[in-house]
Amino acid sequence: MATEGDKLLGGRFVGSTDPILEILSSSISTEQRLTEVDIQASMAYAKALEKASILTKTELEKILSGLEKISEESSKGVLVMTQSDEDIQTAIERRLKELIGDIAGKLQTGRSRNEQVYMELFVFFHYILLMTLEIDVIMPGYTHLQKALPIRWSQFLLSHAVALTRDSERLSEVKKRITVLPLGSIDAISERDFVVELISVATLLMIHLSKLAEDLIIFSTTEFGFVTLSDAYSTGSSLLPQKKNPDSLELIRSKAGRVFGRLAAILMVLKGIPSTFSKDLQEDKEAVLDVVDTLTAVLQVATGVISTLQINKENMEKALTPELLTTDLALYLVRKGMPIRQAQTASGKAVHLAETKGITINNLTLEDLKSISPLFASDVSQVFNTVSSVEQYTVMGGTAKSSVTAQIEQLRELLKKQKEQA
Amino acid sequence: MATEGDKLLGGRFVGSTDPILEILSSSISTEQRLTEVDIQASMAYAKALEKASILTKTELEKILSGLEKISEESSKGVLVMTQSDEDIQTAIERRLKELIGDIAGKLQTGRSRNEQVYMELFVFFHYILLMTLEIDVIMPGYTHLQKALPIRWSQFLLSHAVALTRDSERLSEVKKRITVLPLGSIDAISERDFVVELISVATLLMIHLSKLAEDLIIFSTTEFGFVTLSDAYSTGSSLLPQKKNPDSLELIRSKAGRVFGRLAAILMVLKGIPSTFSKDLQEDKEAVLDVVDTLTAVLQVATGVISTLQINKENMEKALTPELLTTDLALYLVRKGMPIRQAQTASGKAVHLAETKGITINNLTLEDLKSISPLFASDVSQVFNTVSSVEQYTVMGGTAKSSVTAQIEQLRELLKKQKEQA
Amino acid sequence: MATEGDKLLGGRFVGSTDPILEILSSSISTEQRLTEVDIQASMAYAKALEKASILTKTELEKILSGLEKISEESSKGVLVMTQSDEDIQTAIERRLKELIGDIAGKLQTGRSRNEQVYMELFVFFHYILLMTLEIDVIMPGYTHLQKALPIRWSQFLLSHAVALTRDSERLSEVKKRITVLPLGSIDAISERDFVVELISVATLLMIHLSKLAEDLIIFSTTEFGFVTLSDAYSTGSSLLPQKKNPDSLELIRSKAGRVFGRLAAILMVLKGIPSTFSKDLQEDKEAVLDVVDTLTAVLQVATGVISTLQINKENMEKALTPELLTTDLALYLVRKGMPIRQAQTASGKAVHLAETKGITINNLTLEDLKSISPLFASDVSQVFNTVSSVEQYTVMGGTAKSSVTAQIEQLRELLKKQKEQA
Amino acid sequence: MATEGDKLLGGRFVGSTDPILEILSSSISTEQRLTEVDIQASMAYAKALEKASILTKTELEKILSGLEKISEESSKGVLVMTQSDEDIQTAIERRLKELIGDIAGKLQTGRSRNEQVYMELFVFFHYILLMTLEIDVIMPGYTHLQKALPIRWSQFLLSHAVALTRDSERLSEVKKRITVLPLGSIDAISERDFVVELISVATLLMIHLSKLAEDLIIFSTTEFGFVTLSDAYSTGSSLLPQKKNPDSLELIRSKAGRVFGRLAAILMVLKGIPSTFSKDLQEDKEAVLDVVDTLTAVLQVATGVISTLQINKENMEKALTPELLTTDLALYLVRKGMPIRQAQTASGKAVHLAETKGITINNLTLEDLKSISPLFASDVSQVFNTVSSVEQYTVMGGTAKSSVTAQIEQLRELLKKQKEQA
Repeated sequence: MATEGDKLLGGRFVGSTDPILEILSSSISTEQRLTEVDIQASMAYAKALEKASILTKTELEKILSGLEKISEESSKGVLVMTQSDEDIQTAIERRLKELIGDIAGKLQTGRSRNEQVYMELFVFFHYILLMTLEIDVIMPGYTHLQKALPIRWSQFLLSHAVALTRDSERLSEVKKRITVLPLGSIDAISERDFVVELISVATLLMIHLSKLAEDLIIFSTTEFGFVTLSDAYSTGSSLLPQKKNPDSLELIRSKAGRVFGRLAAILMVLKGIPSTFSKDLQEDKEAVLDVVDTLTAVLQVATGVISTLQINKENMEKALTPELLTTDLALYLVRKGMPIRQAQTASGKAVHLAETKGITINNLTLEDLKSISPLFASDVSQVFNTVSSVEQYTVMGGTAKSSVTAQIEQLRELLKKQKEQA
Repeated sequence: MATEGDKLLGGRFVGSTDPILEILSSSISTEQRLTEVDIQASMAYAKALEKASILTKTELEKILSGLEKISEESSKGVLVMTQSDEDIQTAIERRLKELIGDIAGKLQTGRSRNEQVYMELFVFFHYILLMTLEIDVIMPGYTHLQKALPIRWSQFLLSHAVALTRDSERLSEVKKRITVLPLGSIDAISERDFVVELISVATLLMIHLSKLAEDLIIFSTTEFGFVTLSDAYSTGSSLLPQKKNPDSLELIRSKAGRVFGRLAAILMVLKGIPSTFSKDLQEDKEAVLDVVDTLTAVLQVATGVISTLQINKENMEKALTPELLTTDLALYLVRKGMPIRQAQTASGKAVHLAETKGITINNLTLEDLKSISPLFASDVSQVFNTVSSVEQYTVMGGTAKSSVTAQIEQLRELLKKQKEQA
Repeated sequence: MATEGDKLLGGRFVGSTDPILEILSSSISTEQRLTEVDIQASMAYAKALEKASILTKTELEKILSGLEKISEESSKGVLVMTQSDEDIQTAIERRLKELIGDIAGKLQTGRSRNEQVYMELFVFFHYILLMTLEIDVIMPGYTHLQKALPIRWSQFLLSHAVALTRDSERLSEVKKRITVLPLGSIDAISERDFVVELISVATLLMIHLSKLAEDLIIFSTTEFGFVTLSDAYSTGSSLLPQKKNPDSLELIRSKAGRVFGRLAAILMVLKGIPSTFSKDLQEDKEAVLDVVDTLTAVLQVATGVISTLQINKENMEKALTPELLTTDLALYLVRKGMPIRQAQTASGKAVHLAETKGITINNLTLEDLKSISPLFASDVSQVFNTVSSVEQYTVMGGTAKSSVTAQIEQLRELLKKQKEQA
Repeated sequence: MATEGDKLLGGRFVGSTDPILEILSSSISTEQRLTEVDIQASMAYAKALEKASILTKTELEKILSGLEKISEESSKGVLVMTQSDEDIQTAIERRLKELIGDIAGKLQTGRSRNEQVYMELFVFFHYILLMTLEIDVIMPGYTHLQKALPIRWSQFLLSHAVALTRDSERLSEVKKRITVLPLGSIDAISERDFVVELISVATLLMIHLSKLAEDLIIFSTTEFGFVTLSDAYSTGSSLLPQKKNPDSLELIRSKAGRVFGRLAAILMVLKGIPSTFSKDLQEDKEAVLDVVDTLTAVLQVATGVISTLQINKENMEKALTPELLTTDLALYLVRKGMPIRQAQTASGKAVHLAETKGITINNLTLEDLKSISPLFASDVSQVFNTVSSVEQYTVMGGTAKSSVTAQIEQLRELLKKQKEQA
């Protein structure tokens, strides 16, 4: 079963391929790629401003048609950079003003390149929270990629979101330190701490996303089959029509390497040079711009992937083989009065007995079980129920519905606080 | 089915956990860890020398008992390093001589720390070649972790071995350059090229092994189920008796990071320091030793994993779903005279028709197929046969048995040449 | 002139070579090296505790003799690590207790491995602040290693100290985040953010120290001659008795590479692994320990170098060639009413005229100068005075004595605040 | 004295700033920067082809004017990239053909992007060899940036050139391996070894250049004053007309960080991804292009710097203080029959006696010396002669003119062989 609602959630990127993904994937020049990323991001931002009643419908249309014109000019190579244009973003702003006049300025409302990373992160959180509503979906939890215990799908999402809240906290600390005026000092001349800090924080964020990407790449194999990427975030092949390649996730994973490369570069540049100014320092600007633009694009693609992801509940259920409940069998015996160590040994014996018989442990007869321990009784059949299994862990961080709901609530509160402090 | 013979192949590491793996996994001190790696490697080497009739049985026993004594001393922290001991390896050599006299010297036959990496690589190749004998095992080939076309298990192994032959070639080039006397020059004072070169080559080798490890970690999940690690190379859990964690492969994967860290360190140390000697250069020695010891241990573990790996032929067969033969369906039409583009479209239509009907393409009736193209005839049923599918690609690098055998032969020849040049 | 007082300041490390430096420099094993670093640091810490009346003289003596015994055992290789010893530090603590009883516990007062980095940083700040008392020493300020304008020696020190206050702030943020309990979540299983954060912060700190080391290495060449390292922090050569090699500074510079290598390693280990636990994560512990121990040792050596540094005031004065005052010549003309651009051109002409005549600009006659601009008058001779030159910049961050004193005061306040928050 | 001939040598880059340097220094976009580098490199290459009679004067002029037009178009942002343009270089080739017809093709004679790195390296060697003709210039040799023994300027250059011959050898090995067809195998799909190898080799080359840059930056300080950069490779300041900033050398030094960043990125991208194709691999192309273009530009700048460098022989002579000959004093005593250890002690005593008297050792009277050892006689005065000092080391790698000439000859031979094998 594909869960409902994924099309509703994913309103942002329906239809064919996400334009941001297309740009990330193409082999056109870096410069042109960044131009396109900027234009697409501006379009998305303009739409958001209209929804927030900051732009009227008419203003939105003007801005969108202006941006389309610029995109066209860029693809033809006739988008001119003037001397006064600091970078692509300012070039686009200037050109937009030339094309549609002062309305162009409205697009800049509360927005800067760095702000955009922050904004994209919160859009991502927004969709993650929406997806955690699928709280009744149960799946195997893994360690070492081997099945361990049943968990809720929402917990899987939560674990990635929680990691990213630390990144968001670190980003705002970096921002805070940048805005503090440096102590009047010679140190200020060659101080590039903010560059190193920003790219360090960005690298860790990308490491977190590479983990999420890896999980989803594995979950979207035919063999796992837990999720299906929307067509907008995968590519096919005319030769192999059955294939659905998770290009979007592979790109996210690979960009962790790219961002780390920028960190490695700037750190090696800075190492051992004398204090005050030297020309070595000029490597900083391109690095920061590339990292900020990469982060913005990657977060947009990650949001797109998550918000249009199809969850295959039936495959997850099928994967919840009875062996996952071996621990529950041990806990059953503990409840009947057996010491924990003995109970573990007993449940281990049950696993081996089932293996010998070529059946799953839930198909062992009561007699089979009684041959292991006389404490087993007819109520043991209730053990092999995944829903009750997850419901029994009601502690903080547990798998019970109430517990997971509380964690989602906690995350929501934390995000609210982070947004306010941003 | 678990393929026979894996115990025969894996004679080196039967029983419980591989001692080298245990050492790599433990959280004891680096120093002690390296000592243990050295001792275990010396024991393995002594056994190999006995098999090659370089040591007698009695000499072997003396050497082994001497090494065991040293291992014991090391674990108790009473193994003394004297002023004249260059490193752990020389300390062990000296101590062994103190314990068993001049026989100790025989252990050094044709052996140095760097030679050992080389030797371990060829032992690894040896077992890979043995494993490629399973040439009749067919499995899905993947790109993007999505099933593409059927391939032979031997090809999977070959692809990793071929990558490693390039590493072995690079290692011998580094060795060649080290043994060349530097041009009499001031440059020789601070020349650390061999350090950088050796660690660069080692890093790429580790990247290759990290890929192999990733493949096998995924293949050994319950969901894929293509291979099962021997108990010596996986760990379990009393709480979850059904789990078999691929710790050995995860360790191999992680060591790519460790070795790269050493490369990053030495490069940053060298960057921008003035020529001739400065104390910065002293970071080189520990780096080289750690990299060589890590490589040695990792290759031993990789050899152990490969040589004891159980191949689950039945699961591979089950994974060869008919959709993997869609390309064959198109080729069938091409053989009947249809242009390739049209044939692809037709096979794509067949895939969709099967999906609509909720069946696999091999279960489409001849009528179904004829509704797509009149060229389909009763002989189409022969298309859906994996063995004939792989047999049809007889070109160099193809999947036919003859072709894969030729590739194995090529590899064997290359290795022979590399060994001679070493 | 060598400034007085450096022996007073350097009370901590008089005599021959600093023992910590000796350990960093030696080629003995890492393990033994770290053991020695720990023992020496414990000795220093014990002495500090006695000064702070936390230990009595008798207790101090017992602790010191116990530590000396352990050092002896370690050098003989008979210091045993037991199963319960987490690492070297805990092994030393245990052994000390065996040797001297419960007094050993007093050594742990308010101390942990991480705390020690923090403590060493503040000891370093303490000596930097003491050294800034040499506020009347004027030297050339450089950009691109070319002389720019006269500055005060204190400003040079301040600029490095200010950079390190940011590191200290970042360290305390990392500490803050570590002590926060993670949101109950699956994420907590494989969360290694604190490892990455700590090593990132440590890397930037080391980059800052590598800059300081580079500056001082250049300043201590015969050609610059601005500072002389104490014998405890340099090495000589029997063959070349006139040489004084700044080994200590080169070691500090090189350790930036080492710490960065640890960062690169852990980031690559974490990239793209699936979430929850896998064995890859075990690379974290050794990395953190090595980074913390390296930082501790490096800060101790840096403190030793700074606190015993001899400032060669006369050489600095000699280096203040009149060309450094060219800007003052332009400012003189501005004060007489000339527009700034014209004034710059005029001072440029003066430089070239002096070059042509083969003299320095302060030796141009009034006539020479009048040939460039009639605004030059006899009071121009007052321009060529370094002390008045630096005194004229009284703005925040300026070179005037009052301004530099204010900056020192600011730094002192900031450090006080940071210490309170620590 | 400024050595003659540097203008002759530097014919390639006279006048104002080297255009390649200007491009490297500017903050314009990467894309545009690379375009300009390509165009300038093409112009230089066309001129070389004309000198080699491959192009006629008329053809050269057409090509140059075509390239100038393209440069203009690029700076106006109207240079269009078409779908069929693989990268900037192919775009320029196509546009040139549109502008000047088939002559454009002649520019490609024996040229590829990678060949260009190789070519630039040999142009660099060519100028280094020319500069080693200054064999009579003697300067202090340094270790730890402290004066050690007198050496010849040619030896300093040789030491850097020798390091680069190893890079050139490695480059040609990479090239060799790229042109070998891979063994038909699945491995070939995702094989990116050549990317890693090329960037590894490039990184080490850049590390070597960063060392050369560091040496020259220090040698060009006022304090050392050994060399003066030509105006084309340094920048001034209207505010500080006496300054000559070595921007070109600082850029070279910093690019080591940039190139290493590319290596770090691709290695992290490759780590732990499954075998065969995945989208992660697409990070390779931009990396290779950027590295090749950076190397090309950096080598051109390095060649420019070296070929126009002014050697200040007088300052080098002044730096050859008598203390540098202390070893010669010991050798004098050895020649008179004293054991080497005793002789070293005696010469050490002489140093200290001179220090006590506040004079240099060459001003000690014969009586002073006889008070240290009766072996001193009137012929000791001959010891304090730098020229005879360097002439006494006639062994391979020694400082004698004959020895250095032999080393230059060796290098010339090696380069000839490398060129033939290229």
